[in-house]
Amino acid sequence: MNKTKVDITVSLDGYVAGPNQSLDEPLGEGGEALHEWVFGLESWRQTHGREGGETGAESELVEASTSATGASIMGRRMYSSGSGPWEDDPKARGWWGDMPPFGHPVFVLTHHPREPLEMEGGTSFHFVTDGIESALEQARAAAGERDVHVAGGAQAAQQYLSAGLVDELTLHVSPLMLGAGERLFDGVPALSLEPTLKLPGTIATHLRFNVR
Amino acid sequence: MNKTKVDITVSLDGYVAGPNQSLDEPLGEGGEALHEWVFGLESWRQTHGREGGETGAESELVEASTSATGASIMGRRMYSSGSGPWEDDPKARGWWGDMPPFGHPVFVLTHHPREPLEMEGGTSFHFVTDGIESALEQARAAAGERDVHVAGGAQAAQQYLSAGLVDELTLHVSPLMLGAGERLFDGVPALSLEPTLKLPGTIATHLRFNVR
Repeated sequence: MNKTKVDITVSLDGYVAGPNQSLDEPLGEGGEALHEWVFGLESWRQTHGREGGETGAESELVEASTSATGASIMGRRMYSSGSGPWEDDPKARGWWGDMPPFGHPVFVLTHHPREPLEMEGGTSFHFVTDGIESALEQARAAAGERDVHVAGGAQAAQQYLSAGLVDELTLHVSPLMLGAGERLFDGVPALSLEPTLKLPGTIATHLRFNVR
Repeated sequence: MNKTKVDITVSLDGYVAGPNQSLDEPLGEGGEALHEWVFGLESWRQTHGREGGETGAESELVEASTSATGASIMGRRMYSSGSGPWEDDPKARGWWGDMPPFGHPVFVLTHHPREPLEMEGGTSFHFVTDGIESALEQARAAAGERDVHVAGGAQAAQQYLSAGLVDELTLHVSPLMLGAGERLFDGVPALSLEPTLKLPGTIATHLRFNVR
């Protein structure tokens, strides 16, 4: 059976994005630095069309997670930083250009219905207006035997975690503080967690749990 | 020169104590479980009069931190869970009985003046009513060449971190969520951190930083 997972990078003070998100800084002030740990890894570089990079346990962790994922779910703000009707959204085709790095169906939570978008490289975007459970059902069907990744942002992760719909939680803890922004665990009740992995990487520390 | 350090255990969702702190549950609901990682270590057991325990890098981390500490600072609530005049405080002599485990001078931040208390085993309690900088000055003088440990709780740590008075931050990240309570980093601005240690322990993960 496939599982539903949240696999996300947080700052030491618990933020997944910095303050004042904008089209210039979609991850908010300082938020881009959260993800520095991944840019040097061979597995990430391959899926993003770049050469070289570090091999080893940390790169393998990313590779295993990527190849096990058959569908993703994300919030509208992660998709485009927008809100409201699509015709007014400058990033209505998403942040990633014509060939997004997902390579699988991505289900976008929105209040504004829209036909699916087929992109290059195996990514398609599907716009779900009837709630998180419907999005999960569609994502699971699309993923087949593979996993469903709740990619973010904070609100989407919070909703799935709070609803008890997540089987596995992976946190990549970056060694920096943001001081303000979007907190991953805001409003999420205490979940019962079973630790399954602790991996200190070159920059970040990786912690994985089964959610019971 | 001695340094000023915050060395504290946090939940995965960033709390140093759970909700509804009381005399029965001074660390709040679920908060005691935060510290399970330390109870099995030989170095902790020795300073708390118990035998046995795990040796190795994690125990040595605790031992090194303990032996390098010459004075501690803590908030009134960590000291006694109380507030207001001392004569109404059922834990006016602190939480730890006649022989507290510190073995050095402890400076308690309070609004209510009081004579120092000499305890057994080298611990003394000094009550500081003129603010965090005065407490730090007194603690540094008492510590001599050794370090000053800002022990907690959340508010004391926040005040020292926000004032830029902390040289080193060590987080022991416990693999559990509390869902509510006292957040370590509430109101603390983004500090510039230089990672110096990542140690995955048996239960917790230990992360240390120089604060620049």
